[in-house]
Amino acid sequence: MAIPRIGILTVSDRASRGEYPDRSGPAVRAFLMERLAGRWEALERVVADEREAIEAALAEMADRQSCCLVITTGGTGPHPRDVTPEATAAVCDRLLPGIGERMRAVSVESVPTAVLSRQVAGLRGSCLVVNLPGSPRAIRQCLDAVFAALPHAIELAGGPELELASPPELPH
Amino acid sequence: MAIPRIGILTVSDRASRGEYPDRSGPAVRAFLMERLAGRWEALERVVADEREAIEAALAEMADRQSCCLVITTGGTGPHPRDVTPEATAAVCDRLLPGIGERMRAVSVESVPTAVLSRQVAGLRGSCLVVNLPGSPRAIRQCLDAVFAALPHAIELAGGPELELASPPELPH
Amino acid sequence: MAIPRIGILTVSDRASRGEYPDRSGPAVRAFLMERLAGRWEALERVVADEREAIEAALAEMADRQSCCLVITTGGTGPHPRDVTPEATAAVCDRLLPGIGERMRAVSVESVPTAVLSRQVAGLRGSCLVVNLPGSPRAIRQCLDAVFAALPHAIELAGGPELELASPPELPH
Repeated sequence: MAIPRIGILTVSDRASRGEYPDRSGPAVRAFLMERLAGRWEALERVVADEREAIEAALAEMADRQSCCLVITTGGTGPHPRDVTPEATAAVCDRLLPGIGERMRAVSVESVPTAVLSRQVAGLRGSCLVVNLPGSPRAIRQCLDAVFAALPHAIELAGGPELELASPPELPH
Repeated sequence: MAIPRIGILTVSDRASRGEYPDRSGPAVRAFLMERLAGRWEALERVVADEREAIEAALAEMADRQSCCLVITTGGTGPHPRDVTPEATAAVCDRLLPGIGERMRAVSVESVPTAVLSRQVAGLRGSCLVVNLPGSPRAIRQCLDAVFAALPHAIELAGGPELELASPPELPH
Repeated sequence: MAIPRIGILTVSDRASRGEYPDRSGPAVRAFLMERLAGRWEALERVVADEREAIEAALAEMADRQSCCLVITTGGTGPHPRDVTPEATAAVCDRLLPGIGERMRAVSVESVPTAVLSRQVAGLRGSCLVVNLPGSPRAIRQCLDAVFAALPHAIELAGGPELELASPPELPH
């Protein structure tokens, strides 16, 4: 059986131009390494905040590279350049509104401006696409809020089985 | 005055083919019998997970059979055959996003995969349509989360008055 | 630098016909006076529950009168005459779903029928438009739930800086 592939798509004008190193993609990867058991492989890309580039990258990861999950980071705010949710909605067959709702509901408890995040999640065929904000702290908080449900969504949509790591053992 | 009618629409490929008995529709009915006072009558149907069949059943219940409330159960998940939310949105004039949000927010506290439910609610004329998941446990939890508000929505939309049962008396 | 302008748009058939005094607009204004520091000016209007009138008033306030924030009150419920969310969505370039979600999530804790409110928020260029229900009590509760995030949204969208008042000093 093929090893499950997960796309990590950083959406950032400045990181895509090399003006600073991408810290968001690696934060997503670190979270996945901690929480997934079994074998999986990551495909990582950085694109600018351009709808066409984001849509093309999502389609490439979902269709040609057979990712079962694509996590985007960045481009979800109210700034006019933030277009990740629009690009995601455009390439998905159906949206899963509860994922964005839950990420916002959990984040807003510690960060009032989390209500401004427009992140969405949806399915393109059997590939689940989930938007996250760009800040490493928000990445962890948002993924934490919904991660336990993602393998089930992928399985129902016809994708491969992703195995969650067991919770860390408590010291005796 | 006419007796208020409530449609209960089970959406399930297997129940519609008789492969197993419908347990979801009866769970909705049991909840309504517990929580509604006064007279009302139920119209119950089971249809397959097909958009056209769901849309036709909703329109029939709302328009020809003058239901003031139609509760659907099933077909709200991320599986490709799950199309109840799409069918509901297509036949409604306006959606009430807070109802789905609230059902998910309450359910997710006990079931992490509740974020995957795509259920919606909306009005078709003066008929309120509310989607529920298919599992009897989720039915009760979701209806519980929003039921107190439904009679008010129906009344504002021009429908009949539905009377909520008084809460059970506490033992002395 | 120009003084920031805030539009307050009361949407009410009866208030627009003078059948009763508008209490909603003044409640919004009182909240803003309490919570904003620095200079700002209010533009207040009352329109009927008509989509065209609401859309025209929003466009006028955002485009010609250069409001950085327009707060509407009224017309967000399930009644067939309630069309403020539709009018708002029609004139905005992008919606901020987290604002409506948060207002409902907070309100429902004290008022079960808050799940019926369909209020939305969005950006028209650099002008943030936020719908509120009509009841003065709900106005305060809903604004309270999201107000801390609004200046950040306006700034990210390219609008002027709105300054939040310091929290009141506690007595010694």
